[in-house]
Amino acid sequence: MGKSTQIRTAAETLESLGVDFVVTREPGGTPMAEAIRELLLAPRDEPVNDLTELLLMFAARAQHLYTYILPALERGQWVLCDRFTDATFAYQGGGRGVPRERIELLESFVQGEIRPDHIILLDAPVEIGMSRARQRGELDRFEQEAISFFQRIRDTYLERADGDSRYSIVDASASLGQVSARVKNLMCKFHADLL
Amino acid sequence: MGKSTQIRTAAETLESLGVDFVVTREPGGTPMAEAIRELLLAPRDEPVNDLTELLLMFAARAQHLYTYILPALERGQWVLCDRFTDATFAYQGGGRGVPRERIELLESFVQGEIRPDHIILLDAPVEIGMSRARQRGELDRFEQEAISFFQRIRDTYLERADGDSRYSIVDASASLGQVSARVKNLMCKFHADLL
Repeated sequence: MGKSTQIRTAAETLESLGVDFVVTREPGGTPMAEAIRELLLAPRDEPVNDLTELLLMFAARAQHLYTYILPALERGQWVLCDRFTDATFAYQGGGRGVPRERIELLESFVQGEIRPDHIILLDAPVEIGMSRARQRGELDRFEQEAISFFQRIRDTYLERADGDSRYSIVDASASLGQVSARVKNLMCKFHADLL
Repeated sequence: MGKSTQIRTAAETLESLGVDFVVTREPGGTPMAEAIRELLLAPRDEPVNDLTELLLMFAARAQHLYTYILPALERGQWVLCDRFTDATFAYQGGGRGVPRERIELLESFVQGEIRPDHIILLDAPVEIGMSRARQRGELDRFEQEAISFFQRIRDTYLERADGDSRYSIVDASASLGQVSARVKNLMCKFHADLL
């Protein structure tokens, strides 16, 4: 998918526009939340209950949101975050099969009314994402799942984006240059919309 | 409080009654849930958000409940658990100040209708509990709190027990022999009530 590269592109674009921003990621973003991430990603013999996984995701999110993201927003910074609650709907909802309403309940419980202003969805056929994960080396607990798991994740992301103007879908199977140009263009547009 | 001793007493009583049972604890009870316990108890520089703490407690509980407690109950075993959701109401509710309704929401979310049949509350003035924790050695993240924190916890436990027949309050400031006799007596009564 070139997600890391594209986050760098987005950051560089904001920099060139003179925007004050921070780059962060989920699950993680603070030492405590990163420790929860480790728990979530580590392959283990014990089957992890779907609710456990979901609650750990939101535990990490609460820590990240209240100790890092909100203070940054209050300082007037933009927050560029690699994955957020959409990933929970996609992985724990589409992937694991937790009903959407259950996830929405935790979303409101933890976030109140806080939602991202813009979401860039880097979309590609699941085979591409899986082969890139394999090239990175040892697979984490999620990456070890079957292709059908990732197909459901992709479907859920696309369903969420459908008809919602906050989402921009970028074809991540295009060349790196094309994807970067599109991401740069989107960041400029988000910035211009504020002026 | 002599909590460990009294759990042993309760277990020995069940054994003498020929009851098939398991002994477990929260947060923890499975390797994954014990890893979450470690995250919760470790003293750390980063302030832990109240919601993070609460969600981690319920993440550990979901894992414990669905992968350990419910299978044991389905096998017909009694489950003797050192702490359960009452501790969450006491620590995260009374101690941290999370509103009771917020905790009740997660209780229903994770447990559905599952509640303990009996709760033995070992009650003692907070000074006694604190001095025993100090004698055990290095204090965990909770044990490092001020006396007022533990006073609110004790108050919450007592409020929850008040007028609810599932709770049995045992004066844990009495002699070990007296406390053990009372616990043994209660376990016999719970068993007799089933016959």
